[in-house]
Amino acid sequence: MSGSNARQNVALQQLAAGDVPAYIQVLGQGARAAARELRRADTGLKNRALEAMALRLAASRQLILEANALDLQRGKETGLDNALLDRLALNDARIDAMIEGLHQVAALPDPVGEIDDMRYRPSGIQVGKMRVPLGVIGIIYESRPNVTLEAASLCLKSGNACLLRGGSEASASNAAISSCIQEGLADVGLPPESVQVVATTDRAAVGAMISMPDYVDVIIPRGGKSLIERISREATVPVIKHLDGVCHVYIDTTADPAKAMAIAVNAKTHRYGTCNTMETLLVDAPIADIVLPELARAYAEHSVELRGCERTRALLPQATLATEEDWSAEYLAPILAIKVVDGMDEAIQHIEQYGSHHTDAIVTQDISLARRFMAEVDSSSVIVNASTRFADGFEYGLGAEIGISTDKLHARGPVGLEGLTTQKYVVFGDGQVRQ
Amino acid sequence: MSGSNARQNVALQQLAAGDVPAYIQVLGQGARAAARELRRADTGLKNRALEAMALRLAASRQLILEANALDLQRGKETGLDNALLDRLALNDARIDAMIEGLHQVAALPDPVGEIDDMRYRPSGIQVGKMRVPLGVIGIIYESRPNVTLEAASLCLKSGNACLLRGGSEASASNAAISSCIQEGLADVGLPPESVQVVATTDRAAVGAMISMPDYVDVIIPRGGKSLIERISREATVPVIKHLDGVCHVYIDTTADPAKAMAIAVNAKTHRYGTCNTMETLLVDAPIADIVLPELARAYAEHSVELRGCERTRALLPQATLATEEDWSAEYLAPILAIKVVDGMDEAIQHIEQYGSHHTDAIVTQDISLARRFMAEVDSSSVIVNASTRFADGFEYGLGAEIGISTDKLHARGPVGLEGLTTQKYVVFGDGQVRQ
Repeated sequence: MSGSNARQNVALQQLAAGDVPAYIQVLGQGARAAARELRRADTGLKNRALEAMALRLAASRQLILEANALDLQRGKETGLDNALLDRLALNDARIDAMIEGLHQVAALPDPVGEIDDMRYRPSGIQVGKMRVPLGVIGIIYESRPNVTLEAASLCLKSGNACLLRGGSEASASNAAISSCIQEGLADVGLPPESVQVVATTDRAAVGAMISMPDYVDVIIPRGGKSLIERISREATVPVIKHLDGVCHVYIDTTADPAKAMAIAVNAKTHRYGTCNTMETLLVDAPIADIVLPELARAYAEHSVELRGCERTRALLPQATLATEEDWSAEYLAPILAIKVVDGMDEAIQHIEQYGSHHTDAIVTQDISLARRFMAEVDSSSVIVNASTRFADGFEYGLGAEIGISTDKLHARGPVGLEGLTTQKYVVFGDGQVRQ
Repeated sequence: MSGSNARQNVALQQLAAGDVPAYIQVLGQGARAAARELRRADTGLKNRALEAMALRLAASRQLILEANALDLQRGKETGLDNALLDRLALNDARIDAMIEGLHQVAALPDPVGEIDDMRYRPSGIQVGKMRVPLGVIGIIYESRPNVTLEAASLCLKSGNACLLRGGSEASASNAAISSCIQEGLADVGLPPESVQVVATTDRAAVGAMISMPDYVDVIIPRGGKSLIERISREATVPVIKHLDGVCHVYIDTTADPAKAMAIAVNAKTHRYGTCNTMETLLVDAPIADIVLPELARAYAEHSVELRGCERTRALLPQATLATEEDWSAEYLAPILAIKVVDGMDEAIQHIEQYGSHHTDAIVTQDISLARRFMAEVDSSSVIVNASTRFADGFEYGLGAEIGISTDKLHARGPVGLEGLTTQKYVVFGDGQVRQ
């Protein structure tokens, strides 16, 4: 650990001297070195580290709550709103959930080292693809301090070192959690630089993290759209990003009305603030007068405000007229846009034009339409006869997720352990040369 | 086709008016619209388009050769060197090879629509991953006009529209080939905008292509390192790039000397100008005096210049002393750097420090070392007991390749049809809602 200590001291000196880019670079060098050790850490060692972190977290519960109380105090003083304060707050139950999360990640299968598609080639060589860590992952996030632990555990299990930059409002909580993580790593002999929480709230730290491809292999921003857009624009390191979730449910004429009702109500009202919540409902014209009035009654029970096209308003006079902006709005609120369309082609075109390629569903009993919807809707999740709310890592069986990618390259949709890895080609021969 | 024609006329007007960015944007809009049609084109239709292109190419052989003669004439006048002129030149044999390439791509399995990992979840939904086209691919390349056809055929087969920007030196050849491609597309009823060759050699065209994420999903540059670095730096669209190939062979003490000889000679001398050619040979100290003198004789027969470390020179006085620059040089020439190391750890560290994460091989009979080399060397291809020259799409069984990626995200190593696609989640239910 003496190399580690020396590096940590240099980093702290840079920070004390106010040279944030130099500080971040030292963290990056440490992360790169740790990544080399993590690449050869076996599954058992990584799991023992996760369990050691759980023990450290349980033992430091009081310290973490005290640090969190400091953050909350400062948050109230600086006028954070109640929703943000709630996201920031830790309590015994939330710390229990964090500890349980560590056990769950330890129990997940390790993707690293898995070899796929191993085949003999005519030359006599055997070629396959081996799943390996990406290397160093930079994660930039806001408010919720439990993200620090979630991100650290997923990166560690997938064999990656990580640099974590949390929100300034959670800095004391994040520092306390970070100590538990690094102690847990040291307990099993892994380098503490495997997980490093950036110890400054200076915004220059973000600029430095996203522009050192030698030390960071990918950046994952988690936060508001403006943060993510800024990082995507300025980063010279590849970014796995989540922009917005403008999700649709299309009810086809052949839909089973009971299933259509259940799905359309659940997709909107199960939770309003999640990215896989339906924001626009598309209804095929012939079934509109059957399902819309009944749906409107259900939405009224949940106090969902309806904004519809002219044809919707002919059936539901209580709906206000939707504007052009409504079709691309991510409300994250009890508001729903509704459009009556003439068939699936119009529905698909609407989704293509106004959607965000996140999650879109069709309710239909027609297998040919289902097949076409599957093939033609270009979204990270395409769903037949189920709620859009299923689009997440737990429901898909990935275990925990680090986010939901709306990118097309590399990782698309919920990003679990596999999305934090890459595949390299492995070749076995017995002296073969190219003819 | 009237929409197509109107769009083409607008594009040509923009070009005539000298507004290159507006011209490229019109091409991008056309490509995006074509991508929607290609997404639903079935395998048979795409294959018929490839075969129609082959017929058109055969019928236009004379026109293509005449256009190529123009390019060659202009190339000689502007002083292109002989190597470049050779890459630019087409003849009957090369046109035959292009036609044969179309048949081969038609014969490849279609990756689009393949569904992996389909499983029932406890909620009752079925979740899987479906392989789908990326959308619109922009390819920027130099001199060889046959790349126009290769790139077009791979993009089409994988269901993508493409924008192709070839080198100015091949503009007449590329225009002639492009006509055959678009005629072949029209023959089977696919939009000609599925494949568009940028009809201006203005450099502003590249700047426009790499900065319109609404119309282009990924950029693949093929060319010299400076071109690729510039595009990576300036692009706001994701880039799949190939930088350099500083490939190593490490001969371990337990290596079978005959296999070591065969592999080390083949990896260097089979072809000098390819990215998977060995540039540095690492030899474990105890076996150095056994293999190096014999290897040096073989290299001498091929007139390969040797540059070695001090310990190499003690065994091979004919080698010059390698400088620090030699360890990271991609010679692409009959030159080889040689270093004697103390064991595999030093070899891996050298590869990590000086290599380009392209392709690295070990020659060993020790299965434990082979396992560690596989896991710990972070390169797109890691090879045990075979030549680095195997690292390409044909040898790996991908069929044709669009390039070899040295990136970690999305596509790593040889990029075939699968690398031009992505996976989305597909979910089938029967009315399920989230609890």
